[in-house]
Amino acid sequence: MSRKLRLMIPGPTPLPPEVSEALARPMVGHRGKGFAELTARLHEKLQRVMQTENEVFILTSSGTGGLEAAVANTVNPGDKVLALVAGKFGERFRDLARAYGAEVLELHFPWGAPVDLDAVAEKLKRHPDLKVILTTQNETSTGVVHDIRGLGALAAEHGAVLAVDAVSGLGGIDLPADAWGVDILVTASQKALMTPPGLAMISLSEKAWAKVAECRAPRYYFSLPAAKKALAKWNTAYTPAVSLFFALEAALDLILAEGLEQVFARHRLLARAIREGVRTLGLELLAPDEAASPALTAVKAPAGVAVDDLRKLLLDKYGVLFAGGQGELKGKIFRMAHMGHVDRLDVITALGALEMALNELGHKVTLGGGVAAAQRALLGGAE
Amino acid sequence: MSRKLRLMIPGPTPLPPEVSEALARPMVGHRGKGFAELTARLHEKLQRVMQTENEVFILTSSGTGGLEAAVANTVNPGDKVLALVAGKFGERFRDLARAYGAEVLELHFPWGAPVDLDAVAEKLKRHPDLKVILTTQNETSTGVVHDIRGLGALAAEHGAVLAVDAVSGLGGIDLPADAWGVDILVTASQKALMTPPGLAMISLSEKAWAKVAECRAPRYYFSLPAAKKALAKWNTAYTPAVSLFFALEAALDLILAEGLEQVFARHRLLARAIREGVRTLGLELLAPDEAASPALTAVKAPAGVAVDDLRKLLLDKYGVLFAGGQGELKGKIFRMAHMGHVDRLDVITALGALEMALNELGHKVTLGGGVAAAQRALLGGAE
Repeated sequence: MSRKLRLMIPGPTPLPPEVSEALARPMVGHRGKGFAELTARLHEKLQRVMQTENEVFILTSSGTGGLEAAVANTVNPGDKVLALVAGKFGERFRDLARAYGAEVLELHFPWGAPVDLDAVAEKLKRHPDLKVILTTQNETSTGVVHDIRGLGALAAEHGAVLAVDAVSGLGGIDLPADAWGVDILVTASQKALMTPPGLAMISLSEKAWAKVAECRAPRYYFSLPAAKKALAKWNTAYTPAVSLFFALEAALDLILAEGLEQVFARHRLLARAIREGVRTLGLELLAPDEAASPALTAVKAPAGVAVDDLRKLLLDKYGVLFAGGQGELKGKIFRMAHMGHVDRLDVITALGALEMALNELGHKVTLGGGVAAAQRALLGGAE
Repeated sequence: MSRKLRLMIPGPTPLPPEVSEALARPMVGHRGKGFAELTARLHEKLQRVMQTENEVFILTSSGTGGLEAAVANTVNPGDKVLALVAGKFGERFRDLARAYGAEVLELHFPWGAPVDLDAVAEKLKRHPDLKVILTTQNETSTGVVHDIRGLGALAAEHGAVLAVDAVSGLGGIDLPADAWGVDILVTASQKALMTPPGLAMISLSEKAWAKVAECRAPRYYFSLPAAKKALAKWNTAYTPAVSLFFALEAALDLILAEGLEQVFARHRLLARAIREGVRTLGLELLAPDEAASPALTAVKAPAGVAVDDLRKLLLDKYGVLFAGGQGELKGKIFRMAHMGHVDRLDVITALGALEMALNELGHKVTLGGGVAAAQRALLGGAE
């Protein structure tokens, strides 16, 4: 039979049928009235999902392109930037600032722990000339959600703008960007937004636009002033990925029909269930409960089990694809994503397969034990 | 009834059904074995279609992103760059070099005329320190094909590398990149390659890689060294537009099954037919026959006919979408693209609709006159 693939990696995530259908639509002119109307509708829907009244720009690139747009439009060589690093994507944002010649101050936190607000506050106090704070919302490499609300409050009392990489969390984890004082919000299509990779979205506060006005870094494709000028006519500066625009609208419609609060609650519930299941199997979770991601769960490798063997068996025999560890966590954890088009039975599937695979690899766990714990969480969940 | 849209704009171009089907496929992990195999196959097929043995990198961006990669990876601030400008896309490549701080020398040619090789030769002679020559293969704003073979010969005797924007020509117009001495070749998915927008392709000669080694411009998403490192494992540096990779393979398979020579001959034949038709209607072609694009035909606005009225009538009543003029040619020409998934009857359709619309707007032409001329060209075409 044809293999039934269950993607549980943090992007690309499974596509709802409505999104697949939208992808197959014939091309249209991207400078015509119909496409401008689509762009306007997308803008309104993105503002709702991104919880911002700022303009939202859709860039045809992966999420990293959106992060580059954040840096390339605000950071001049020599500008002081603070990078909060607690995983691979924190490193990436830092590396981008370095590539643009910023003087990058770094605060490191253990991979698996959240950002420590006190350390940030102290750094901000000592460096009143900091221009940009770079942080991650949902650190995909660890399954930790950082305290964006807290960071927003600190940034609000400082001249620096807060730039948030929300690539893997937005649309699955609550992030009231304007209310929490996020100045630059970056996300991408292929995670909780249930759309294939190829689109990045970015919005900027007035405070951030003031930095853009002072910026002299070379940029063209990722120029936000060019994007802003085009958006005034519901257009894009350069040819957009038309099919992905179609698909994104289908996905946003699904999210808005379900309701943002419901979507967030669903993610929290599934995360709780999967964590209960994992814990019941005697495995150790990387992130503490209070900073655990509703969209991705990282699990420490059980003693005597090689993560690569586990992942290979799960994929080859059961068609379940978990992610491995990245950077310093390579070989030490595996990661189960539960973002986007995921439901209760996806959690059961994942745990059921995990239990069988662990037993097959000689790490004995009670068959059905993790599943039952997850079921209890799913049934008991008030959400 | 649902409108039957006939896209005759220079991208996005109509999708073959095989490409639409590929777009709708479910997601897969982009770091897995299957996707690496796809990347390897795409690489081999792209090398054949791009007629190069150099490595080919697929970037998730529009064509402009590919042009930016060409500049950002070779040009340091203050470097001397020669931009050949004979239309809007020549201007864009120049603007990119300016954005990266190059000292840009420019050679301007009339919009609608080809590049004058003597002028280029003289410029090269006077500036032995020129680092990069920026040119367009198929200038989409005018329907002119520049003499890349001639430019390649000039560049071969000079230290400068020849960077060619082949975004709207590659896959429809013959461009033996290695044989003609193209150092940097950039193209994109949504023109003759019959794939939706969102992918840019770029390849570099050894001479070009030597410039990359000296380059210090800030770049991250468009870093070619990062792309090269990833390609060694049949990977991409950042998350690729998975659906568009699927679609691109379907399109390349169609091109290779037809045969490159046949594809080029088909484009030439259709261009000749459409030019015969237009001429027979008494309209004036912008580009001279000897530099006419096989992929796009620009026509001067007939006296007394506003281009916008003509385009609107064609779209609203007949569902035929022509492009208007750009930049200094705005309002002065209309453009009929015939690139990618186009055949004989698309030419007949376009001319048939054009004849009716012209008559409706009071510019009397012989009904069927242009069609008949095109038919004769199509039947007589040895190709």
